[in-house]
Amino acid sequence: MSNSGFQDNDAQGPLKYISKEEADALEKELIEDYRFGKQQLIEILGHSCAAAVTKVFPLQGLPKKQPTILVVCGTEQNGAIGLVCARHLRSFDYEPTIYYPKRSTDNLFKDFTTQCEKMDIPFLSYLPTEVQLINDAYNIVVDAVLGADAESQELKEPYMSILGTLKQIKIPIISIDIPSGWDVENGNPEGINPEVLVSLMAPKKCALKYSGKHHFIAGRFVPYDLQKKFELNLPKYPGTDFVLQL
Amino acid sequence: MSNSGFQDNDAQGPLKYISKEEADALEKELIEDYRFGKQQLIEILGHSCAAAVTKVFPLQGLPKKQPTILVVCGTEQNGAIGLVCARHLRSFDYEPTIYYPKRSTDNLFKDFTTQCEKMDIPFLSYLPTEVQLINDAYNIVVDAVLGADAESQELKEPYMSILGTLKQIKIPIISIDIPSGWDVENGNPEGINPEVLVSLMAPKKCALKYSGKHHFIAGRFVPYDLQKKFELNLPKYPGTDFVLQL
Repeated sequence: MSNSGFQDNDAQGPLKYISKEEADALEKELIEDYRFGKQQLIEILGHSCAAAVTKVFPLQGLPKKQPTILVVCGTEQNGAIGLVCARHLRSFDYEPTIYYPKRSTDNLFKDFTTQCEKMDIPFLSYLPTEVQLINDAYNIVVDAVLGADAESQELKEPYMSILGTLKQIKIPIISIDIPSGWDVENGNPEGINPEVLVSLMAPKKCALKYSGKHHFIAGRFVPYDLQKKFELNLPKYPGTDFVLQL
Repeated sequence: MSNSGFQDNDAQGPLKYISKEEADALEKELIEDYRFGKQQLIEILGHSCAAAVTKVFPLQGLPKKQPTILVVCGTEQNGAIGLVCARHLRSFDYEPTIYYPKRSTDNLFKDFTTQCEKMDIPFLSYLPTEVQLINDAYNIVVDAVLGADAESQELKEPYMSILGTLKQIKIPIISIDIPSGWDVENGNPEGINPEVLVSLMAPKKCALKYSGKHHFIAGRFVPYDLQKKFELNLPKYPGTDFVLQL
């Protein structure tokens, strides 16, 4: 404790890679006890993911003439975070395009979709099967397809085809929280290998098997008491950054 | 228009200072047509205000040994933005204390309050009438008391006393959107004179009478089409900053 009564927030041990069960418990407590709203959490996390993109791929250093980014969104919360990420990327002057094949019927997610549509972010009606078209059109792909809730055993269309495409593309992939097709705890040795992984709140166990270039954690907003309770040992974030590269 | 079909977002004219009516219409359209949620807007705006605080008063350059900040919150939306600002300041390692004398009964605002309480941010049960105690205890005061909706003619307690105190303190005041006690359009020549003003979305007409040191605009998230429709002519934000100093 510091002498002003505020808690010491320096990490005391190694960064923890949490299980699916711990991730669910952490989010439940954040929502039920700490009274964070889903809309608020998705906004914070999507904003953090956009910030991570700008750190690895700054606007001025992109290989293509136009700052194009393809954002592929799934139906569940991971996809909604992708929508928010796309919106912030647009306000940071990137040119995102969204592929969102199975839209959620949840009103909250519908609102995030409308926000993107009303910002004139284009939505693709299908994903080109010719991978070279994607490599040529975009600088990077944001993978917001399947999150921690996806059952990798039960992977259905259109996600099977999307994963097949993501495995073949040559441009960098940024995965949100869990590389799509990976098991939350065991990863997937035959799955995609993103160049960037943005762990939300805390890294999941599968991130121990991550061998890509850049691993970010977006968890600064998690209250200290919760960080302590779950022994997250999150590293210290610099300045006012929302994301930290390990 | 750029050749990719994305809109040109360079401002074409001088920054607009909007009327109360325009501010109401802008927020209404953002919520009803663009489907932004109140929770989401308050989160974005509170975060932006915290970012402005860190720019003018970086953690390392504060005059007092402890990075203390007093955040005074009113009952309405301005106060909720103050609560979010306090929470982010805490995660940026400042030591905020909140004075929130008349709590809202709105569940959304209650949740923002709980988030602060559960982060162990202290709440004052009264504001010291001895102004020197405030000058000594805090580096700065965030004024999130009265926003654009306050009727300055009908100022009641406890806000009359709070304004009396704010007028006397010597430490810098940062006002959110409208310096408390000012009329949205006409200002208040006898009112407080904050060192920092953070205009939300767009500056209101009263900001034309603002003569303090630092004027920020937190409006980057406002969709370009809305910026155009209301002819806001917002300046270009640098990097990934959410706030811009004029």
